Amino acid sequence: MIYIADNIQITRKSISHALDSFSEEPIIDIVRACEKNGADMIDINTGPLTRDPADKMRFFVETVQGVTHLPLMLDTANPIAMEAGLKACKNTVYINGFSLEPHKLDTILPLAVRYHTPIVGYLLNPDSSVPLNALERMDRAVTLFEESRKRGLASEQLIIDPVLVPLLWADGSVQAMEVLDVIRSLPDLLGFPVKTVVGLSNLTAGAMNPQKKLLMESTYAAMLSVSGIDMVLMNMSHNHTVNTLNAASLLVKRRVFSWEELKIRTGNGTVT
Amino acid sequence: MIYIADNIQITRKSISHALDSFSEEPIIDIVRACEKNGADMIDINTGPLTRDPADKMRFFVETVQGVTHLPLMLDTANPIAMEAGLKACKNTVYINGFSLEPHKLDTILPLAVRYHTPIVGYLLNPDSSVPLNALERMDRAVTLFEESRKRGLASEQLIIDPVLVPLLWADGSVQAMEVLDVIRSLPDLLGFPVKTVVGLSNLTAGAMNPQKKLLMESTYAAMLSVSGIDMVLMNMSHNHTVNTLNAASLLVKRRVFSWEELKIRTGNGTVT
Repeated sequence: MIYIADNIQITRKSISHALDSFSEEPIIDIVRACEKNGADMIDINTGPLTRDPADKMRFFVETVQGVTHLPLMLDTANPIAMEAGLKACKNTVYINGFSLEPHKLDTILPLAVRYHTPIVGYLLNPDSSVPLNALERMDRAVTLFEESRKRGLASEQLIIDPVLVPLLWADGSVQAMEVLDVIRSLPDLLGFPVKTVVGLSNLTAGAMNPQKKLLMESTYAAMLSVSGIDMVLMNMSHNHTVNTLNAASLLVKRRVFSWEELKIRTGNGTVT
Repeated sequence: MIYIADNIQITRKSISHALDSFSEEPIIDIVRACEKNGADMIDINTGPLTRDPADKMRFFVETVQGVTHLPLMLDTANPIAMEAGLKACKNTVYINGFSLEPHKLDTILPLAVRYHTPIVGYLLNPDSSVPLNALERMDRAVTLFEESRKRGLASEQLIIDPVLVPLLWADGSVQAMEVLDVIRSLPDLLGFPVKTVVGLSNLTAGAMNPQKKLLMESTYAAMLSVSGIDMVLMNMSHNHTVNTLNAASLLVKRRVFSWEELKIRTGNGTVT
C-alpha cells in the first residue's frame, strides 16, 4: 500500500500564501511532517495556476524535492504547469491526472507518453460529471484504457482512480460502496493487474464533526484495503487513518504476521 | 448488523466467582453495560458446566433476562445445560453452537430442531480442528448444511460461523482473510441468504499491547462489514470497535446517508 500525501494543496491558505510570496518554509514543514508520518509520495496540487504556471510549478517542485527524495505526483489540469514540473523533477514523478474529458486526453495524457511517467486516470464522463454507479465506471475504465493505449501509453503506466465522492452528496454512501466494487473488479475487467488509487479525503469533505470525519475515514480506509486498493491519496496528519491502513496492510498481504510489525502513531491527528 | 455481547463468559474471573456463589450483581452490571453500549443480543458462555449444569445455566438465564429483553445466545457444549437454558428462556433464544463434531450433531443440533431456535454452526472439521483455508471451510459449510437439513433444521435457522483464529497463530492473518472470502461466498455457495457470524475477540486473543489489539480489532471489523457479515460476537466495552461497526453499517446498507445518523461513543473502551 502506497500512501500519497494530499497535504500540499493550493486550497489550503498556508500553501496559497507560500506561493504568493514564493516562501519555501510552510511547504517544507508540511513535506517533512508527511514523510515523518509515513508518506511514500507527495502530491503537489497546485490548482489551474492561470498566472505564471511554469514558474509556480517549478517553485513547488524544487521546494519539495529540496527536502525529500520521495516520488512526487504533479496535480494540475494546466499542461504548461505540468510540463514545467516534469522538466524540473529529479525525483521519480507521477502525473495526476487525466480522464475522458477531451482537453485532458489531448494535453495531459500526451505528457505521460512523452516523459514516460505513470499517470492517474479518473473514471469520469467526458463532460467531467461523475458516473452514477459501478457499471458506468467500468465502462469508462474500458474506454479510458483503450484511449490511453491508442495514444501510446503503456498499460503499466496507467493508475485508475474510480472517483470517490463526498458522503454529503445524496448518493455519496452508495457511490462509496460502488467504488469498492470497481476496485475489486478492475484487474479482471481489464485483464491485467492495473493499479488503483483513491482520494480518501473526498469521502468526508464537508463533514462538520472532526471525530465522525476521522472515524468514517478510517473505517472506509480498511474497506479500501480489503478491496485491493494499491495507493491512497490522503491527509497524512490523520494518525488513526494511517494506523488503520498499517494494520490493514499487514492483514491483506496474507503473509506471516507478527504483532511486532504493527507500528502505531498515538493521538488522533489534526483535521485540517 | 447485529452486535452480540461476548462479555458474559465463564473464563472471566468476575463471572466464575458470581457463578460459584450464585450472586447476580456482577452479571447484571455487565449485561446493563452491554445493552447501554448497543448490544443487540447477549451471549451466555458458561463453558462445559460439568457440575450442576442445569441449575447453573438456569441461574445465568434467569439473571440475565431479569434485567434485559434482549435475545440470549446460549453458549455451551453441554446438552443438559443447553436444554435447561432453553426451557428457562422467556426472551428470544439462539443456540451457540454445533459443528461436524459427532457429539454436537447428535446432542446439540437436535435441541435447535426441537425448540425451533436459530443455531450457530461452526465450520470446523469433525475432529474439531480448524480448516486450513477458505476452500476447506466451504466444503465443511456444504456438509454442515446438508447434515442439519437431514436432521430437520430449517435453512433459516442456520447461522454459519467460519471460525476466526488468533493472529498469534502461524497462519492467523492468512486465515483472517480466508474467513472474509468465505463470508462473501457462502450465500452463493449454499444458494440462499445464509446468515453469518464471527467471534471477533478471537482475532486478537493473546495480544499484549491494548492499543494494537483495539486497532487491529476495529480494522478487521470494517473488513467484516464490507464482506457482508450479519452478526458479530464481540466485547461490547470496546467503544472504538462499536463506533467502527456503526460507521461501516451506515455505508454497507447502501441507502441515503446522513452524518446525523452516525453516533459515536467516546473513549477507547477497556480491554478486558
